[in-house]
Amino acid sequence: MSDFNFESLIVDIPDYPEPGVVFKDITPLFADPDGLRETVVTIADHFRDAGITKVVGPEARGFIVGVPVAMELGAGFIPARKPGKLPRDTYSVSYELEYGTDSLEIHKDAIKPGDKVLIVDDLIATGGTAAATGKLVQQIGAELVGFACILELQFLNPRTTLAESGNHDVFSLIKVS
Amino acid sequence: MSDFNFESLIVDIPDYPEPGVVFKDITPLFADPDGLRETVVTIADHFRDAGITKVVGPEARGFIVGVPVAMELGAGFIPARKPGKLPRDTYSVSYELEYGTDSLEIHKDAIKPGDKVLIVDDLIATGGTAAATGKLVQQIGAELVGFACILELQFLNPRTTLAESGNHDVFSLIKVS
Repeated sequence: MSDFNFESLIVDIPDYPEPGVVFKDITPLFADPDGLRETVVTIADHFRDAGITKVVGPEARGFIVGVPVAMELGAGFIPARKPGKLPRDTYSVSYELEYGTDSLEIHKDAIKPGDKVLIVDDLIATGGTAAATGKLVQQIGAELVGFACILELQFLNPRTTLAESGNHDVFSLIKVS
Repeated sequence: MSDFNFESLIVDIPDYPEPGVVFKDITPLFADPDGLRETVVTIADHFRDAGITKVVGPEARGFIVGVPVAMELGAGFIPARKPGKLPRDTYSVSYELEYGTDSLEIHKDAIKPGDKVLIVDDLIATGGTAAATGKLVQQIGAELVGFACILELQFLNPRTTLAESGNHDVFSLIKVS
């Protein structure tokens, strides 16, 4: 694990997007060349020997973290997008938000049985988005190796949700307790 | 310039999103490990000696191409996002679409005067989005070095639009005439 001070490049925004919530802004981490490289290499190092063939990132901040991790691992990148954004045949999954539901889609031919898949996002909060993305991968018959993120909100117990689809490797740079 | 066959990993979707339009789907290029690496390295090689300090990518596909190019160049990455997605003070720019207008925002402290900036997106069509992103960069007082993309739709004359803000280096992997 890197001894880089990731926290120093993450800005707390009190009462955003609503009173009582502290938003963690990771954009300064990616604006910093060392922050960007250390983030990507540290995540990739954890999964370097896992034989990952595909990295999946949910729209839109999952693209920011997932694409360079895919390149660092010598894997391909697959976007999981909001409905209506992908032009060819897709698999779709719906998941619950605090208020209402949301959906993600993935091209049917993007992942094949036999692929070893890592799901990457900036933040794992309740784990709902990551778990839904994992279900898409498993629906295709590929092997879901694990989940990686920059920030894990431990107080929301995401690992309980992520464990529902099996025993996967969950790696986070920073755990917020 | 790489002799990699980028075109072989881009899928034409006829009559999408509307009749008469051929949509160019670049997701297979990023799903392929060699396609991802060759795309990123070829764009980065073109700007390798330009002293780029920041790469800016417009939401959302600009994130997919821009972040690994930033890492490859040893630069930072700055997202230009749709309104209301960035939590701190922003600069904003509006630009015209075929029907109506759209806006992009950038954190005020993300780029500083003296930064040398490259704007990266998957597609440059009319050049409207790229030109608007360039105006944001110039508003901050940074140096706009150039624009890079995978696909340039030459028949829409984007270079005329991009030249309105000065004489910048425009690099595309594939020109569609």
